[in-house]
Amino acid sequence: MKIPSHIGIIPDGNRRWALSNSMTKDKGYENGILPGLSAFRYCRDIGVKELSIYGFTADNTKRPRAQRIAFTKACVEMVEIIKKEDADILVVGNTSSDMFPHELEELTQRKSFNKGGMKVNFLINYSWEWDLKTRNKDISYYNSADISRIDLIIRWGGMRRLSGFLPVQSVYADFYVVEDMWPEYKNEHIDMALSWYQEQDVTLGG
Amino acid sequence: MKIPSHIGIIPDGNRRWALSNSMTKDKGYENGILPGLSAFRYCRDIGVKELSIYGFTADNTKRPRAQRIAFTKACVEMVEIIKKEDADILVVGNTSSDMFPHELEELTQRKSFNKGGMKVNFLINYSWEWDLKTRNKDISYYNSADISRIDLIIRWGGMRRLSGFLPVQSVYADFYVVEDMWPEYKNEHIDMALSWYQEQDVTLGG
Repeated sequence: MKIPSHIGIIPDGNRRWALSNSMTKDKGYENGILPGLSAFRYCRDIGVKELSIYGFTADNTKRPRAQRIAFTKACVEMVEIIKKEDADILVVGNTSSDMFPHELEELTQRKSFNKGGMKVNFLINYSWEWDLKTRNKDISYYNSADISRIDLIIRWGGMRRLSGFLPVQSVYADFYVVEDMWPEYKNEHIDMALSWYQEQDVTLGG
Repeated sequence: MKIPSHIGIIPDGNRRWALSNSMTKDKGYENGILPGLSAFRYCRDIGVKELSIYGFTADNTKRPRAQRIAFTKACVEMVEIIKKEDADILVVGNTSSDMFPHELEELTQRKSFNKGGMKVNFLINYSWEWDLKTRNKDISYYNSADISRIDLIIRWGGMRRLSGFLPVQSVYADFYVVEDMWPEYKNEHIDMALSWYQEQDVTLGG
């Protein structure tokens, strides 16, 4: 079985899931934390080397305050939970804004936790424009340069779009869409994506 | 009916179509020229304002010589055919390489043909890396800055990936995949994509 080295996760559908379960939209996010841990463990167990998780974007922070607080809290908690695992964690996002949760600032340099292991990248207060607009020409031309190219992107919640997710790393990624919402996460979703991925002929434009 | 202002076209599958019709791979490309004209006219008639067509990339030019010559010729011919229509044409690609067909150089500034009309952008010897690596900080940070954001990307040939297609303009695009190969183009493919597009809730991250 061909295992993608790097999987990108777009955990969409929290708000729609909350509404369809008679909750207010902001309640969806806390139900998206444990799916993150399950996905981390499952990807680690099948031999994935790097996982990038779309936390929230600078655009998302324009949503109503209750939602903003809820998704920020959920993202911070997801990072805290993964810190208890064997992982090499990196947080990528614009720290110069008040919307960045400053307790995560120390993770903007990759850090090993416990025995270390799979690279896990969290996009927190990320924005593709911010990512590409780096002015430091000497080092590299984008802010997410420590994140490698992505082989397979899995998006939950049915939408077929990238929504600004790591444009540079996504250029050759195969894109799989799960119709279920992120809080309904099951390992079988990843199995389905992997089984589809087996049939893809990766050419990188050649 | 909600009509996307800007449609991106990834006309893939020419080689697979040729093989399955007992031709050599390079013969696929010449059968991809008239589909381009049909797609242009159909998009114009339904009120699309801008069309971006993935011609070939710098990576593609590493393919065997017969293929390279064939797809370059097909791209130049597609531009020549669209020049006979009412259109505002722009060619975006790296002109400083021998792989760029120099007869198209005058179109790297947008030019009106006949009565003018829909903007049509051809990516010719394009590369996402070249696109983003502009060193002229004063003007903009990418080479395709004259191409606007894309609302809907339609890819023929069944692959679910962007393959380096305009990363900046594609960040919020909805992505529709046609299983048929590009030489099998029918207007109904665009109808299917549009009918799917009607159900998409465009939020731009808000």
